[in-house]
Amino acid sequence: MSEIVTAAMLVIGDEILSGRTKDKNIGHLADIMTAIGIDLKEVRIVPDEEDEIVSALNAVRSRYTYVFTSGGIGPTHDDITADSVAKAFDLPCEYDDNAYALLEAHYAKRGLEFTQARKRMAKMPRGAEHIENPVSVAPGFRVGNVHVMAGVPSVFQAMLDKVVPTLKTGVKMLSAAVPCPLGEGVIGGPLSEIQKAHPHTIIGSYPKFGEGKFWTELVVRARSQDALEAARKDVESMVSELGAMN
Amino acid sequence: MSEIVTAAMLVIGDEILSGRTKDKNIGHLADIMTAIGIDLKEVRIVPDEEDEIVSALNAVRSRYTYVFTSGGIGPTHDDITADSVAKAFDLPCEYDDNAYALLEAHYAKRGLEFTQARKRMAKMPRGAEHIENPVSVAPGFRVGNVHVMAGVPSVFQAMLDKVVPTLKTGVKMLSAAVPCPLGEGVIGGPLSEIQKAHPHTIIGSYPKFGEGKFWTELVVRARSQDALEAARKDVESMVSELGAMN
Repeated sequence: MSEIVTAAMLVIGDEILSGRTKDKNIGHLADIMTAIGIDLKEVRIVPDEEDEIVSALNAVRSRYTYVFTSGGIGPTHDDITADSVAKAFDLPCEYDDNAYALLEAHYAKRGLEFTQARKRMAKMPRGAEHIENPVSVAPGFRVGNVHVMAGVPSVFQAMLDKVVPTLKTGVKMLSAAVPCPLGEGVIGGPLSEIQKAHPHTIIGSYPKFGEGKFWTELVVRARSQDALEAARKDVESMVSELGAMN
Repeated sequence: MSEIVTAAMLVIGDEILSGRTKDKNIGHLADIMTAIGIDLKEVRIVPDEEDEIVSALNAVRSRYTYVFTSGGIGPTHDDITADSVAKAFDLPCEYDDNAYALLEAHYAKRGLEFTQARKRMAKMPRGAEHIENPVSVAPGFRVGNVHVMAGVPSVFQAMLDKVVPTLKTGVKMLSAAVPCPLGEGVIGGPLSEIQKAHPHTIIGSYPKFGEGKFWTELVVRARSQDALEAARKDVESMVSELGAMN
């Protein structure tokens, strides 16, 4: 058996829960994980509250190969992710010498004061490794299997690009979509039989609604190309047979 | 003290975790909850796996006033939400007479067979109350404090419109946004002092990045208009003072 590599995501921020900001990082991480063969198994969105971050992080980091967080690593008082991650790992949260030097040089070059607020961005759990931030300098960090990244989508994406080459990846989940003009009520029974006949696949049925009627996107997923093709063939046959009858 | 009403959301579906479908229901629920004075405190996205749904549901339903779920209530084999919710509540999942009659009449009227797959949509935990579905008939349901709704956004939204008038609502969280041309590193220190001086508010700082530079949206939130205005005034003064200096 090839190894299955799993991941969870923790989105940290009151602004997502209040609706003020619409998250764009979940969908992006999901796309990237699928592309590189890591199964994203769970996402949690939690508020800017230390206890909530610590308990959610501890719940997921022990269950999955990797955890990715977004949000809460800026310079303001509501950015409490570094402190919370340190607490979850029972590590001190302190100025990281390299991050401090990096930020100090960055602000000096721009003639800006290295304020107490800006210094906050150099704090991380002791022993954490940097995740480079090519957009706005202040680094994310990795501690254990947890990757801590920014919430601003352009920065999150740039950091994730730096992280991806460091991850072990699993056997990629392959997928094939079969569009189906029929509603789920017509295909549900036969599709269930096809799923039973192809236990090494995951067959999903996603209802779509548009122009006053339902149609369905059927998606076959498998880690083996042969299993995928066999199930896809059966799904396609079913769609054309039922399409001719309905 | 006025009552605080809280909520959690459970998004059920492999298609969100794989990135194939981008969720639109979290942001919508967040907006509606904020508008009616309910605090959305947590969101979890879980796969189409019974154990995962049951354990996530049991974790959140005991912690918050309300739970809202999206996804997994259609007629296909991967729609396991009703069974999973029944299991979480230790109730039998069975045909609901009213839902069965409603769906039977609906398909008869359209001259369509009431297939086994379609009948699945009449199953719900014993004693559940319907949530009307004005888009595509098959109802959602409420059991205890858990509201089970469809994943298709137009249906989710229509069901939520039916649910909202049945909810008890809390004292609405008021908010005021103060746009700030400065980055978080400049305002972080003073903003933290303002937060300390206004303990009955929550002051958030949301970095935005565009046209090559950072700016910041500052948001003051409070349940009292007086508290909101007092903090807003201080934040605005800070922004104009620092803006003059930087």
